[in-house]
Amino acid sequence: MTDEFTQFARDLREHVDGALDRLLPPASAAPARLHEAVRYSVFAGGKRVRPVLVVLAGETFGAPRDACLIGGAALEMAHTFSLVHDVLPSLDNDDLRRGQPTVHRQFDEATAVLVGDALLNLGLQTLMEEPAAMAADRRLRASVLVAEAIGTHGMIGGQMADLEAEREWPAAPEAALDSIHERKTGALLTAALRVGGAYAGVRRAEDALLLTLGRCVGMLFQIGDDILDVEGESAILGKTAGKDHDARKLTYPSLHGVDGSRTILAQVRDEAMTLIEELPSSRRLFRSLVDYLCNRDR
Amino acid sequence: MTDEFTQFARDLREHVDGALDRLLPPASAAPARLHEAVRYSVFAGGKRVRPVLVVLAGETFGAPRDACLIGGAALEMAHTFSLVHDVLPSLDNDDLRRGQPTVHRQFDEATAVLVGDALLNLGLQTLMEEPAAMAADRRLRASVLVAEAIGTHGMIGGQMADLEAEREWPAAPEAALDSIHERKTGALLTAALRVGGAYAGVRRAEDALLLTLGRCVGMLFQIGDDILDVEGESAILGKTAGKDHDARKLTYPSLHGVDGSRTILAQVRDEAMTLIEELPSSRRLFRSLVDYLCNRDR
Repeated sequence: MTDEFTQFARDLREHVDGALDRLLPPASAAPARLHEAVRYSVFAGGKRVRPVLVVLAGETFGAPRDACLIGGAALEMAHTFSLVHDVLPSLDNDDLRRGQPTVHRQFDEATAVLVGDALLNLGLQTLMEEPAAMAADRRLRASVLVAEAIGTHGMIGGQMADLEAEREWPAAPEAALDSIHERKTGALLTAALRVGGAYAGVRRAEDALLLTLGRCVGMLFQIGDDILDVEGESAILGKTAGKDHDARKLTYPSLHGVDGSRTILAQVRDEAMTLIEELPSSRRLFRSLVDYLCNRDR
Repeated sequence: MTDEFTQFARDLREHVDGALDRLLPPASAAPARLHEAVRYSVFAGGKRVRPVLVVLAGETFGAPRDACLIGGAALEMAHTFSLVHDVLPSLDNDDLRRGQPTVHRQFDEATAVLVGDALLNLGLQTLMEEPAAMAADRRLRASVLVAEAIGTHGMIGGQMADLEAEREWPAAPEAALDSIHERKTGALLTAALRVGGAYAGVRRAEDALLLTLGRCVGMLFQIGDDILDVEGESAILGKTAGKDHDARKLTYPSLHGVDGSRTILAQVRDEAMTLIEELPSSRRLFRSLVDYLCNRDR
């Protein structure tokens, strides 16, 4: 039986993809190779978790679904930017992503650099301009939230710290691991919930609740990803399983073991479940999200 | 004797650099190597033309100088993003910029990718959040103007088209040249004038005047740059003179000859001078700017 969150995400997916299709420049527009590569990277699969979180949080506080889908599509662009740049030959140097050649493999490295730049820029521009019917101060707020999540205290800073940790094993690896993943993965997932809240015009206390809940979601997501990487199979994951582990990267299983990682997962799960009780609605759906994140390898 | 525009730009420079110093994260903030590299790229010299244009256009229509300096600093970040990414090994592959090692040479390629990403993002974030005293709708307007100038119909698209023209000589080289440079150089220079106007709350007709004038400024800047590249000396320019010419890149001198380029320069100069007559103030300073752009090799 499909769980409630999976069904919710599945139902939204075509609407997210529809919004992305409308918001991205057509592949025929000049420079065509660039726009083709932008669409290749965005439509290479993926569960659209960030857009789903925008809708989930937005509807919890009363924001219209259409607005959340558009903002969610913009977050997906920002997410795809990081996917494209993080795997460049000079960074993680991956040939495959979601079972398909990465942009620099399918096109070329210069195009991949420009595709990432274009998606970062268009993601933020979309949040500034769309949804057009949304009050300007809410659009501005959403744009700032996402820019903060992308920046050197967010995804970009986390990626840099991750590269540095590979070169030189950090003095305090546990703290470094938490800090890197909070920025690399957690920041944009948290921003997704808060953008939904911003579209609903939530007050400060509600935004703080979404922020704390977002950090839990980010940790559950990352720990689950790390466990999947150790236990998964290449065919299922579409990337070389065990790659992170072999390279002695900082991961939850490499520092805490698989069982230790599952213990942390259970602790964060409990914290998330407590926070969810404070939400005004959608509590069952949020609980289903948390269970989904805790059982991704099953 | 120093011309009026040069003096104006020189007087502003330390204020622009002061604004950049306040807006950029300290080099000591983690990840330190990234922030160090961000500052290395931004403080590697340069005449801060874009910030000066924000101040010039802003003051012409009554915007406060302090606001224009902050917005100008944000545009300089966006400009530096393109300088850092455009010279990466997979793109133009330059070792020197303004006489100093490029970021990927001084640090490494992964750092250079992330520095460009960080500056693009922080440039836009700064325009969203600053100046804090500026009305939110004007900040949003300025942010959108710059994002449009950066995007795939602006700088990023122009860079892609430039790379494509190198691989395959375009069927209509004159049209391709104009179109590439309008996007690569003209778009952000035009946005600089329009951001100044946005801070002053100009009406549509005044914005259109700044747009047309910006296109002239962009052409004068690019044609002047191309002529400088052919006639200049490495020691003065701080990059390998004649590099663009040798590589059979699309440039004004390579298509129109140096004399032909000077003729185009004179035509655009006349157009700009006519437009300047329609400005409500600062006409002498704008004329001095145009003369400066037409005489950069002297």
